[in-house]
Amino acid sequence: MNTEDIKGFFASREQLDMADYLTLDYYLECVGDIETALAHFCSEQSTAQWKRVDHDEDFRPKYAARVISLTIEGELEALSYPVVHFETGPIHACRVTIAHPHRNFGAKLPNLLTAVCGEGVFFTPGVPVVKLLDIGFPEAYLRAFDGPKFGIDGIRDLLQAYDRPIFFGVVKPNIGLSPANFAEIAYQSWLGGLDIAKDDEMLADVDWSSLIERSRVLGEARARAEKETGEPKIYLANVTDEVDRLLEQHDIAVSNGANALLINALPVGLSAVRMLARHTKVPLIGHFPFIAAFSRMEKYGVHSRVMTKLQRLAGLDSIIMPGFGSRMMTPEEEVKDNIAECLQEFGHIRRSLPVPGGSDSALTLETVYRKVGSVDFGFVPGRGIFGHPMGPRAGAMSIRQAWEAIEQGISLETYAVGRPELEVMVDGINRKK
Amino acid sequence: MNTEDIKGFFASREQLDMADYLTLDYYLECVGDIETALAHFCSEQSTAQWKRVDHDEDFRPKYAARVISLTIEGELEALSYPVVHFETGPIHACRVTIAHPHRNFGAKLPNLLTAVCGEGVFFTPGVPVVKLLDIGFPEAYLRAFDGPKFGIDGIRDLLQAYDRPIFFGVVKPNIGLSPANFAEIAYQSWLGGLDIAKDDEMLADVDWSSLIERSRVLGEARARAEKETGEPKIYLANVTDEVDRLLEQHDIAVSNGANALLINALPVGLSAVRMLARHTKVPLIGHFPFIAAFSRMEKYGVHSRVMTKLQRLAGLDSIIMPGFGSRMMTPEEEVKDNIAECLQEFGHIRRSLPVPGGSDSALTLETVYRKVGSVDFGFVPGRGIFGHPMGPRAGAMSIRQAWEAIEQGISLETYAVGRPELEVMVDGINRKK
Repeated sequence: MNTEDIKGFFASREQLDMADYLTLDYYLECVGDIETALAHFCSEQSTAQWKRVDHDEDFRPKYAARVISLTIEGELEALSYPVVHFETGPIHACRVTIAHPHRNFGAKLPNLLTAVCGEGVFFTPGVPVVKLLDIGFPEAYLRAFDGPKFGIDGIRDLLQAYDRPIFFGVVKPNIGLSPANFAEIAYQSWLGGLDIAKDDEMLADVDWSSLIERSRVLGEARARAEKETGEPKIYLANVTDEVDRLLEQHDIAVSNGANALLINALPVGLSAVRMLARHTKVPLIGHFPFIAAFSRMEKYGVHSRVMTKLQRLAGLDSIIMPGFGSRMMTPEEEVKDNIAECLQEFGHIRRSLPVPGGSDSALTLETVYRKVGSVDFGFVPGRGIFGHPMGPRAGAMSIRQAWEAIEQGISLETYAVGRPELEVMVDGINRKK
Repeated sequence: MNTEDIKGFFASREQLDMADYLTLDYYLECVGDIETALAHFCSEQSTAQWKRVDHDEDFRPKYAARVISLTIEGELEALSYPVVHFETGPIHACRVTIAHPHRNFGAKLPNLLTAVCGEGVFFTPGVPVVKLLDIGFPEAYLRAFDGPKFGIDGIRDLLQAYDRPIFFGVVKPNIGLSPANFAEIAYQSWLGGLDIAKDDEMLADVDWSSLIERSRVLGEARARAEKETGEPKIYLANVTDEVDRLLEQHDIAVSNGANALLINALPVGLSAVRMLARHTKVPLIGHFPFIAAFSRMEKYGVHSRVMTKLQRLAGLDSIIMPGFGSRMMTPEEEVKDNIAECLQEFGHIRRSLPVPGGSDSALTLETVYRKVGSVDFGFVPGRGIFGHPMGPRAGAMSIRQAWEAIEQGISLETYAVGRPELEVMVDGINRKK
């Protein structure tokens, strides 16, 4: 590209009608001349050849992605990660904001993904290291999306649970239980105080635990638990399946008594989530398989907040995400970013309930609560409830007792006295120390 | 886990009925005791709690993933990439093969993805760095999949093109052309010798070029080109869209005269590809947006060959992939691996036509052909044809002339004499030298 060509890929916000553009924030490592690399970066993701041969025309004013902000963070001695590349010259770490015209693809999730993290973005000469950090949407674009049908408020209304976190539990053993045994364990956990007994993200419709049978017995168990406790309860059935079975799986599970559905958003695809969200009669809760594969590197791939935002846009009423526990290997700020993505203003799109998960128990509830900074979150132990030495009912009780201690400003150790369900958890950790 | 617990996650192939297992090859960096880390790695991806409290049972023999092969590549001074983690101890680079029981999830792509690159795999204590390198499928599992409906042979029959590569071209300008102008350019390229004129992966159904209108005028242009040349031609329409519109988009495009369809596999999701493959009346060709985000790091994420294999399994008749060009930043061996994944024996699943793409032209054809090592590939220039200084017809002619030179064992320079379409390309590169 010559100097004139390069200029066509730079603009100021003032020069553009920003209602026509998404804003894309990227971290980039550029090799060689920075402006040339950035012009290619815009060109490859939008209009890689902006005129026909022998025609006097320029498609860039309408269709080009353009750099509207650039911060050069510094020069690097080498790329942050080894990547085969052929350009030479100095290497600069840059933060850029790109205005990308959404008329190029429209309000469709697969086409959006293609534009913002597709071939153009990851295969630009001179830009071997790329991380998509965030996407900003104008109101005009957001209006095409419905977002969550229930959101946090809908889930709270369903459970009649206000002013506190929502207590989930992943029934364990996660794989191998017969539906009848699964139902008995879920039932016990509801009696102990869980709001939501959930299928593991790896448990779906399998011959040893078909969704039709599992949802039937769980629906019955839920009705018994509601009667016994006088409280609404949720059985969260995992309907993750081939996309042409999702609506049917929804109908089977819901008619049998599942009153919320789990869906593995990336494995089925965000567009399938959007389809299911249009159809659903109950809240949809997303789980995060596959996300770590492209989000764990600090300076490469796609930031997890982008996926949280897109999952909310696609219509998930609640988003389970890698949380604060050490097993999750996720920086605390990143978890907080993802929680904020669920809760913050987003046009007309409802708030999603964030569920930062991973190796939780009565012992981690206070930490999670303090880090979240509000009661608007879901708490989702697995083994912390279902591996409790006194059984799942006691496991669920220990979680509620831990919340009571927090509410009353009493230490766990003190509150555990005379409450064996909590005491055994506190003693367990003390023994390990 | 204690020593006995750990043992339950190791086995030899001979101890297992391998028809019940997928084999998963991973590169791992383990912190601390290797066997403990690997037992957790298996446990987290299968049965994280393998018995109910107070029951004498063990779900592992039926449901546990197990290490069946381990090679310790060496001790590392530090993780290959900085990842927040809390374990301490020596760090070892390992290659493992895991036998993962497919009864845990069945022959369903979203559930397969959840198991092999989900929470369990990427959030195991002591295993902060993971790359899924390959998946092996037993016949019993493969039988549930149809794979490509046409495959290489079907595409060759459609085009009556044998014993040579298939010549694609990405119509450019890729974004912004009216359907009528698009059709004129495609028509010229067919006359020049292209087999397949294709939509860019970023061009889909948009208001300034609706699929219904574009496929109509392209269908007409194709008929004219076929009549004029006496050869079958393909218009490859991009139907990438929300998944609940894919079948309708197929029907519109095909009834209007598109005789192959482009689909961005990861953005719509592999399961949506499988759905479309069941429905399609024409060959399906996949494009690769998003793949680089999780496959570029040598030792982290998911290897691109896994996605090539899964795309073939899902039913793509042809797979466009990052090719040999320097813009693609892909090691030559990785491109060759992906080509091999399309062509090699895979149960009853038909061969897919590999299309290694990226910045090709008449000047790169011989290199690509030599590296592929056979004529069973597609060649897909964009600007190399549609940016040709003499126009798209000449651009397409230059590609066919380059192939004639290769077939006749004549150098490009020599063959270009008296053939201005090729000559201008050869002169262009010589001027740059």
